[in-house]
Amino acid sequence: MNSLDALRTRLATVYDLNKAASVLEWDQETYMPRGAAEARSQQLATLRSLSHAHFTDDETGALLEDAHISTSDLDADHPTRALVRVTQRDYDRATRLPARLVSEFATATSRAKQAWQAARADDDYSQFAPHLERVMALSIEKADAFGAASPRDRYDVLLDEYEPGMTAAEVAREFAELRAGLVPLVEAIAGAPQVDDRFLHAPFDEDAQWAFGLDVAQAFGYDLAHGRQDRSTHPFSTTFAIDDVRITTRIDSQFFPSGFFGTLHETGHALYERGVSSDYARSPLASGTSLGMHESQSRLWENQVGRSRAFWHHWYPTLQAVFPTQLGGVALDVYYRAINRVAPSFIRVEADEVTYNLHVMVRFEIERALIEGSLAVVDVPEAWNGAMEDYLGVTPPTDREGCLQDIHWSLGLVGYFPTYTLGTLMSAQLFAAAQRDLGDLANHFARGSFLPFREWLRAHIHQHGRVHTATELLERVCGVGLDAGPWLEYARAKYTLIYDLAA
Amino acid sequence: MNSLDALRTRLATVYDLNKAASVLEWDQETYMPRGAAEARSQQLATLRSLSHAHFTDDETGALLEDAHISTSDLDADHPTRALVRVTQRDYDRATRLPARLVSEFATATSRAKQAWQAARADDDYSQFAPHLERVMALSIEKADAFGAASPRDRYDVLLDEYEPGMTAAEVAREFAELRAGLVPLVEAIAGAPQVDDRFLHAPFDEDAQWAFGLDVAQAFGYDLAHGRQDRSTHPFSTTFAIDDVRITTRIDSQFFPSGFFGTLHETGHALYERGVSSDYARSPLASGTSLGMHESQSRLWENQVGRSRAFWHHWYPTLQAVFPTQLGGVALDVYYRAINRVAPSFIRVEADEVTYNLHVMVRFEIERALIEGSLAVVDVPEAWNGAMEDYLGVTPPTDREGCLQDIHWSLGLVGYFPTYTLGTLMSAQLFAAAQRDLGDLANHFARGSFLPFREWLRAHIHQHGRVHTATELLERVCGVGLDAGPWLEYARAKYTLIYDLAA
Repeated sequence: MNSLDALRTRLATVYDLNKAASVLEWDQETYMPRGAAEARSQQLATLRSLSHAHFTDDETGALLEDAHISTSDLDADHPTRALVRVTQRDYDRATRLPARLVSEFATATSRAKQAWQAARADDDYSQFAPHLERVMALSIEKADAFGAASPRDRYDVLLDEYEPGMTAAEVAREFAELRAGLVPLVEAIAGAPQVDDRFLHAPFDEDAQWAFGLDVAQAFGYDLAHGRQDRSTHPFSTTFAIDDVRITTRIDSQFFPSGFFGTLHETGHALYERGVSSDYARSPLASGTSLGMHESQSRLWENQVGRSRAFWHHWYPTLQAVFPTQLGGVALDVYYRAINRVAPSFIRVEADEVTYNLHVMVRFEIERALIEGSLAVVDVPEAWNGAMEDYLGVTPPTDREGCLQDIHWSLGLVGYFPTYTLGTLMSAQLFAAAQRDLGDLANHFARGSFLPFREWLRAHIHQHGRVHTATELLERVCGVGLDAGPWLEYARAKYTLIYDLAA
Repeated sequence: MNSLDALRTRLATVYDLNKAASVLEWDQETYMPRGAAEARSQQLATLRSLSHAHFTDDETGALLEDAHISTSDLDADHPTRALVRVTQRDYDRATRLPARLVSEFATATSRAKQAWQAARADDDYSQFAPHLERVMALSIEKADAFGAASPRDRYDVLLDEYEPGMTAAEVAREFAELRAGLVPLVEAIAGAPQVDDRFLHAPFDEDAQWAFGLDVAQAFGYDLAHGRQDRSTHPFSTTFAIDDVRITTRIDSQFFPSGFFGTLHETGHALYERGVSSDYARSPLASGTSLGMHESQSRLWENQVGRSRAFWHHWYPTLQAVFPTQLGGVALDVYYRAINRVAPSFIRVEADEVTYNLHVMVRFEIERALIEGSLAVVDVPEAWNGAMEDYLGVTPPTDREGCLQDIHWSLGLVGYFPTYTLGTLMSAQLFAAAQRDLGDLANHFARGSFLPFREWLRAHIHQHGRVHTATELLERVCGVGLDAGPWLEYARAKYTLIYDLAA
């Protein structure tokens, strides 16, 4: 066996171990009896630790060295070179953290998560602050261990974990453009007559919701021979293999959009993972290339498709037939406006398509300032509330509805938040590029035709797995890298019509 | 860390890997989309292979050597000595098979399974015969590798895999006694007026069956905080941890007893695994001690409890309330006789409590003769049909309904069949011992009280895990080892009443 084959074999073992852990985690969130938590966490720790040991073994490093030499004649785009490049990247990340730091990080985040839960329950930021202090200090250590050349590079290094190749400066530039366009749009909407969506807050049979959501997911090309949907407290998608990508959802029996758009969102993630070329099976290439690009896929199907008028032109009669009492007397346009209602609010995960991005910006600016040292942990609530007032025109009445609402920082996820909005921006760039190639997508959707769009995404994005970075993919497909323009254009056009704003 | 702790840590890792594989197998049988089979089989192979490598590593052997020395002062019954003893046994088994034989066995059984499926479909034994020949030859090699001192020891060695410490001679002796008592009983029943169970072949709502079965399982002490029931093609129970033992069942919408007694059977297995002392968590002791003892637990709850008149004295009114149309007009005694209907048949898995054991004997005698060389593979159908005629008074019209009905031999499971009837015999021995301690159990069951019996089983059998062999447990609890007497006594008493036979 040559060393490239030996490397592939080793990586397949690591992949299988990680995916076995994913199955155990999926079970934990869907079916596991509650009394099994302790045993399950031991099993997961065992799998994660074996996977880590296997991957970071010196032998992996030696095989990688050989592999660089044996693939040096190949094009940079060649999947085998990409495999070596991506594996080297993961290997460096996995081996550069000293064991002491890994262990301290695990302990600190475990405590921080508990402290965050208590702090949120008690609406008492002071309980969380010392833990946040510690997590940020360790995140800085982590950035330095990953090779941050200077304190100014630290946030880039952390962001790079989730969005390879993207820099904080690039994000900040596009976010500034986005904010400049969004804040006036939100203000204009606030000044317009408001949309009434009260008829969506009514009893909707859960099984009927479930079936309708799955019908649409299948119309998007999600194949139940290689996937399934289960219930969980928090919706997610998870990959066990390219041939087994599952989604979960949570149905709200009193509010139809919650479960339905959740299903579409997770379907978007799942179609990405399902679309990766089978040539990359059981390798580090067999996954979406970044969190931002992943989120672009979920947003595309949830928002650009699922909240479009064309989509409902086709599907609304079916939905009315499923829920005649609730929707039989509601006209398509009234329904369409209701599912696109915009209203500034305090909680990110409940925010609409427009204001959502402003929530993300607040977090990005605060965590970047914390890492760069220009903001003290004690001042986070004030910074948070000030930014909310500036961007959204609302001030959270409590920290529970403010800086204590998200779990991310307690888990040490720093550099993660911006990827939510990166996904939003990328989704509009890709949608525009697809329209360039396929013609007006509304015409497709209005006829109930979604597969050409899915095939386009597969050809241009999905199949490549991690061969190219998100920026490389955008440049190949759209001609430019990250760009806030297309999404702003999309949002302005859509909401000008919905809220009858002066153009 | 001393070497005993190091051994425990190593064994915990192996346990976690095996249990992760169990979760993946459970998912495969319950929820996995059909297109994921190939990827799943790779993942399972990876987990099994890592577990095997970790367990059979020389380091395990070295730690075991140290552990023998450091525990030599302890009583033989001491759990730590038992841990070392049981682990040594498993280690010897796992390391004695040469890699070549493991690989040949895997290939041969994989082919044999396919050939068996085709042969059964075509009712053509000649397609299966060469594969059975090969599997038996490799089983003999396996027995020799495990240390069979002479050809006469081979079957003992194979049986020992599933029923540690039991010998073929011991099995044959008790089976002979059993057969001598059973054949006339079956004949007497055949000569009596037959029981009519046609009213059980009717539509029974699946959800109502499901709920009733789970209610009874919980009354037996099966706790849904540490277990759950799902659907699968073939019912099974599976252990992910002492705190997470699950069952599956298959509901027949046209025949109530199928799913219900399946649930009770698997509940019996699950209560055993759930009852193991938490001191043995994540170790080789954390499991039932043998297949026979395991089967005794499933048979106890399915038959001695679930098919008893006392049980239905308590539960039948509830069942009638659940199925008033089907059972409202059926008297308890009519129902009781119907669920205990005895009728010689061709298919083991559909056999009643009485004739079941004769099916098992046919297989035991044939596989033993094959291993000992006194029967040729080509002569199996004749031997099978002859024994069926002798024991049950029926001759299978086809090999599909005869020697081709079971999957076991194609998988290389030789020495496995007898444990089904060993379980039957042990169940009656334990039931008798429990009555000695608790008084007439029928009085408990008729009041709906099942937990004292479950607690008795936990104290005397379950909690010990693999510390004692089945024979040791029987000797401790019943004063003697394996004994066919109590079950024969139970069967004679029960069926004399049901069929109104001359005593």
